[in-house]
Amino acid sequence: MISDPASADWSLDPLLEKDTVPIGDMPLCHVRLINDATYPWLLLVPRRHGIIEIMELDFIEQAQLMSEIMQASRVLKAQTQCDKINIAALGNVVPQLHVHVIARSRGDAAWPRPVWGVAPARSYEKSDMDALLAPLRQRLALTPV
Amino acid sequence: MISDPASADWSLDPLLEKDTVPIGDMPLCHVRLINDATYPWLLLVPRRHGIIEIMELDFIEQAQLMSEIMQASRVLKAQTQCDKINIAALGNVVPQLHVHVIARSRGDAAWPRPVWGVAPARSYEKSDMDALLAPLRQRLALTPV
Repeated sequence: MISDPASADWSLDPLLEKDTVPIGDMPLCHVRLINDATYPWLLLVPRRHGIIEIMELDFIEQAQLMSEIMQASRVLKAQTQCDKINIAALGNVVPQLHVHVIARSRGDAAWPRPVWGVAPARSYEKSDMDALLAPLRQRLALTPV
Repeated sequence: MISDPASADWSLDPLLEKDTVPIGDMPLCHVRLINDATYPWLLLVPRRHGIIEIMELDFIEQAQLMSEIMQASRVLKAQTQCDKINIAALGNVVPQLHVHVIARSRGDAAWPRPVWGVAPARSYEKSDMDALLAPLRQRLALTPV
């Protein structure tokens, strides 16, 4: 396994850990699934200490982040057959840089509005979560965490 | 002026033209200001025909889009001294690919929530809009449109 000195002092904000489950690690980002069965919803968290805005990453990391967002988008689209991918870096509540990649479908609880603050989170049944996580882990070619 | 064959058959969706004003053109994106004085809010619209998702752009265009989002973020942050930049590509209502780059401040009408659907748009006074547009145009080094 290749060590990654740049991520050595990185740790996940407890607020991002809450109500999410780990999927695995891409080269830059730690990837999690939000435990809300209303929308298949990934979080990409660059493993870099103290970064709040994408513009604080260096140029190579910004390009890598775009590449990983695209990979997550393609996999989520292929897996869910959704109608639209929503991508957002907001961070007004949790400053640690994290990117939302959300599979949206016509007729979902918030459609066509953004998902935030619309419907209360609805936890996955264990079997449903397992059925989603297994192919996501395989298709994203992640390092297990 | 360098011609740009790839953008020859591009046109702006009328729904993105509505309630926005043109700022100028970056190498890939047409840039507009949303006419809502509640938040300094830019729209970046890649001048590519028929593109709905970022992943439909080619790899070079994706990198250029990231670069232009970063440039818009830096200029908006410098100009407004905001607390947080919000970046989003949603497109559930208007399919034509467009990226929101929004200057958020603690205490603004939606803080810390995302901006969508919170406060009704409040048009700029002409003098306030001119005062915002002039330095944005200068700092973004845009081609006039």
